[in-house]
Amino acid sequence: MAAPCGSRERSLCARVPPMLTDLYHFTMAYAYWSAGRHREPAVFELFFRENPFGGGFSLFSGLHDCLLFLRNFRFTEEDVDYLRSVLPPATDPAFFQFLREMDCSGVTLRAVPEATVVFARVPLIEVAGPLAVVQLLETSLLCLVNYASLVCSNAARFRLAAGPDRKLLELGLRRAQGPDGGLTASRYTHIGGFDMTSNVQAGFLFGIPVAGTIAHSYVTSFSSLEEVWPQTLRPADGEQDPVDLIPLTKGILGRLCELLRAEPAKIHEGELAAFLSYAIAYPGNFLPVIDSYSVSCSGLLNFCAVAIALNELGHRARGVRLDSGDLCRQSLEVRRVFKLCAEHFSVPMFESLIIVGTNNISEQSMVELNKKENEIDTVGVGTHLVTCTKQPSLGCVYKLVEVRGNPRMKFSEDPEKSTVPGKKAVYRLLDSEGQPQLDLLCLSEEPPPQPGQTLGCFPLGQEARLAVTPAQVTCLRQEVFAKGQITQPLCSDAECRDKVQRSIQNLHPRHKRLQEPEPYTVALSEKIHTLIAEIRRGTSANSSFLVAN
Amino acid sequence: MAAPCGSRERSLCARVPPMLTDLYHFTMAYAYWSAGRHREPAVFELFFRENPFGGGFSLFSGLHDCLLFLRNFRFTEEDVDYLRSVLPPATDPAFFQFLREMDCSGVTLRAVPEATVVFARVPLIEVAGPLAVVQLLETSLLCLVNYASLVCSNAARFRLAAGPDRKLLELGLRRAQGPDGGLTASRYTHIGGFDMTSNVQAGFLFGIPVAGTIAHSYVTSFSSLEEVWPQTLRPADGEQDPVDLIPLTKGILGRLCELLRAEPAKIHEGELAAFLSYAIAYPGNFLPVIDSYSVSCSGLLNFCAVAIALNELGHRARGVRLDSGDLCRQSLEVRRVFKLCAEHFSVPMFESLIIVGTNNISEQSMVELNKKENEIDTVGVGTHLVTCTKQPSLGCVYKLVEVRGNPRMKFSEDPEKSTVPGKKAVYRLLDSEGQPQLDLLCLSEEPPPQPGQTLGCFPLGQEARLAVTPAQVTCLRQEVFAKGQITQPLCSDAECRDKVQRSIQNLHPRHKRLQEPEPYTVALSEKIHTLIAEIRRGTSANSSFLVAN
Repeated sequence: MAAPCGSRERSLCARVPPMLTDLYHFTMAYAYWSAGRHREPAVFELFFRENPFGGGFSLFSGLHDCLLFLRNFRFTEEDVDYLRSVLPPATDPAFFQFLREMDCSGVTLRAVPEATVVFARVPLIEVAGPLAVVQLLETSLLCLVNYASLVCSNAARFRLAAGPDRKLLELGLRRAQGPDGGLTASRYTHIGGFDMTSNVQAGFLFGIPVAGTIAHSYVTSFSSLEEVWPQTLRPADGEQDPVDLIPLTKGILGRLCELLRAEPAKIHEGELAAFLSYAIAYPGNFLPVIDSYSVSCSGLLNFCAVAIALNELGHRARGVRLDSGDLCRQSLEVRRVFKLCAEHFSVPMFESLIIVGTNNISEQSMVELNKKENEIDTVGVGTHLVTCTKQPSLGCVYKLVEVRGNPRMKFSEDPEKSTVPGKKAVYRLLDSEGQPQLDLLCLSEEPPPQPGQTLGCFPLGQEARLAVTPAQVTCLRQEVFAKGQITQPLCSDAECRDKVQRSIQNLHPRHKRLQEPEPYTVALSEKIHTLIAEIRRGTSANSSFLVAN
Repeated sequence: MAAPCGSRERSLCARVPPMLTDLYHFTMAYAYWSAGRHREPAVFELFFRENPFGGGFSLFSGLHDCLLFLRNFRFTEEDVDYLRSVLPPATDPAFFQFLREMDCSGVTLRAVPEATVVFARVPLIEVAGPLAVVQLLETSLLCLVNYASLVCSNAARFRLAAGPDRKLLELGLRRAQGPDGGLTASRYTHIGGFDMTSNVQAGFLFGIPVAGTIAHSYVTSFSSLEEVWPQTLRPADGEQDPVDLIPLTKGILGRLCELLRAEPAKIHEGELAAFLSYAIAYPGNFLPVIDSYSVSCSGLLNFCAVAIALNELGHRARGVRLDSGDLCRQSLEVRRVFKLCAEHFSVPMFESLIIVGTNNISEQSMVELNKKENEIDTVGVGTHLVTCTKQPSLGCVYKLVEVRGNPRMKFSEDPEKSTVPGKKAVYRLLDSEGQPQLDLLCLSEEPPPQPGQTLGCFPLGQEARLAVTPAQVTCLRQEVFAKGQITQPLCSDAECRDKVQRSIQNLHPRHKRLQEPEPYTVALSEKIHTLIAEIRRGTSANSSFLVAN
């Protein structure tokens, strides 16, 4: 059960009003408006300049939120009153009437579908519409795409590092950059490949499976068995009388100490009390953290005793969580003890207990964990996942490429900040294996590349011309918003999640390896290449205006 | 003008419902409830283990939001329905009635005041109340304090790096971790020492001064002077006829080229058109970005020509923005040209034009910028400020220290994850200069340290006993929430902002230097030190329970 879609849309609109943008968009919109240019058709492109985390790819996310934002884009009277108070006094009052009436009915978006594998420098969204309106959208769209894509890509890398089978649990809310950072992280890490989240509100809003174990505070809140109340538990079949768990568990614990040659004096009574109390409340959901005092001397023994006792009453414990120290080494020891117990106490379900590991897991430690022998079934990841410590921002930009049908280009003092002019079509060329081979940026009026036909192009950042013969060609972007409406059905988050995995699976290993991937080629058509050369020449030639007058 | 306080509170409550927490708090609360322990008095502490960014201090922020959250803490019927669907089927239905009736009327908070300089390991908030309730608050409080404190501390470091006089503009919204990450960043970087934000919604909600310049897209949207309309501007005194700015500016530009020996052919006509058009719309707010093509060959000349023309009509341009390349070097050249113009064209206001620098500024580049000769008046900072690239999470934790009057302690497999038991009082000892000297954690029943009297204590992480004689003693925490009400007046953001600067000013330079600061001492009283030893001994001695039965 999750919140209905309408409430998600309302929640988004409350979090992302049209005022969540930079002031200069309003002053520029005013300058366009007062020059009568505000309705000129303009085209902006949204893209990022480098794949995140030193990787070879990224995942594009946040588009659906952009579409909901556009559909609801209207300034309130309160917004306009505030703007009137901060814009320069010279602002013509009629401009505020223009803002009051503004919406996105004149805006058209062409975009790569949500949750697609993408590469640096490929324009992910093309925003076309009245100059003043599309200028005002810039920061909000960037804000919605930047972090969603970053954290989804981060999750996909954690999934690659963890392998396909291990369960991944996101638990980063407490360390996220603000409450909504936590919510966005839960949603997009699930799409990126995580199985579950600890974040209840994310489960509520987005239908993500929620999960959790037991905290240290619960364990340390108990100090003796006298605090266990009730002490009895009814067997699972529900027909027999409740059984007093304390003597039963203590008896098992005594036998366990003999079996494992453990010192009874090192076993923490409060921890046993906590485990018993929790197990009596939730006999089918017993998965405690076992490192509050010492895993091998206390936590593991207490867990096994309670789990065996539960088993005798027909209940099944679920497993344990390790939260400190060498997780791999401890997991091996835990599994060894589980197997011993399975045999010695004739509890075959002990073979299927799960071991959860949590302890400040980073991508690197996930990679290492995967290389080492271990018995961890589920890994919980928080800080490094949600805050993207390795690179906490994607750096998407939003650049003007055309006005009134004329291509536009920025040069900049830093050559890599130059833009690629013109309204474009973007094609993904696939090789004979069906794997992406090259993304080609063409001018929109160019005919699409044809499968089997060789074409010349210019890889970005290189001088040399490249000849390429695609086996298949797909048009990477589609119209997703026009005339104020969303024009494509929005996939569910579950569909997006599937798409991410299929999309990554289809990528050549050389591009998706986590360390030093081979760069994927993004190239310009010959026409764009020529256009850039013309604009560069034009720049130094067009300035006769000074001399001529 | 900013939104009224009530609407801020509503906005916070919409962003941070009680459901924005981890699932295991509910399962633990259930276990407490079903054992009848949910009303037991418990004490949790919120603290972080290391000062962020390798620094010697942090700023404590987010408390006010915590208080508003507590005041409004109630589950809705919809929340409870969702919880019923995700908690284990074994959950007793009466528990949901308990949740329906839950509020924070039994919770008491003692906290360090908002916007105070604090240090690692000092408990910033003490949360006392019914065990089940204070357990449920954990993740939401952490989420509200963690990022607010982190980004406020980051801003304070940027302020230290920039020196007291340079104006600092926050413009990170587009790169923030989610929309609310951007909003929280704008608010707490302002409190931390930034002067302005580009984020309009932050201005609206929090009354932060908003500012902005002009984007490259505006400049590149123009290609020729024919696009300038209207071409005329009325002189500032408003009584004379409008003047055609184009011939006026072109004339000045010709003279400028002679003065500066610039090549007219390299001047970009579209850029001049953009500057003119903007200046005609906002003659009193002309501050364009001048690197769209080339600062020295085009942007600077176009700016000066338009600014001189404006001056002739009695208007005052504001300055320029540099966004790429070597900002320091360029700012020197820009200032040199401004001075030349001031003299040559008799425009003394050119002496006071401002230069804004923006280009992916990090703390390190701010430090370097401050060391090098430059003429930058205002620095705009985005990504590195709001996402805290140097350390994107503070790592606050929330630990149980007392239940039913008994101290509680976690040991952990990692010694640094151990906790300090007991309900405490926290004192800040000041030296004879009035500077903080040491923060002392005592048990709450201990008498406070006395000025002029020597006391023994145990610095955290060290074995040796330390004798210290404070000149003054302040009690660091105060009661801020009790019986469902906020019990201290909330300072305004402006007051918090002042307090940050005063609080940092009062800190000894050895603790506030950005690199390799001397660690500030946080120490335990002898009583706590003894208590820990007793608990450690007790742990190995209390387990007779197994043998005895």
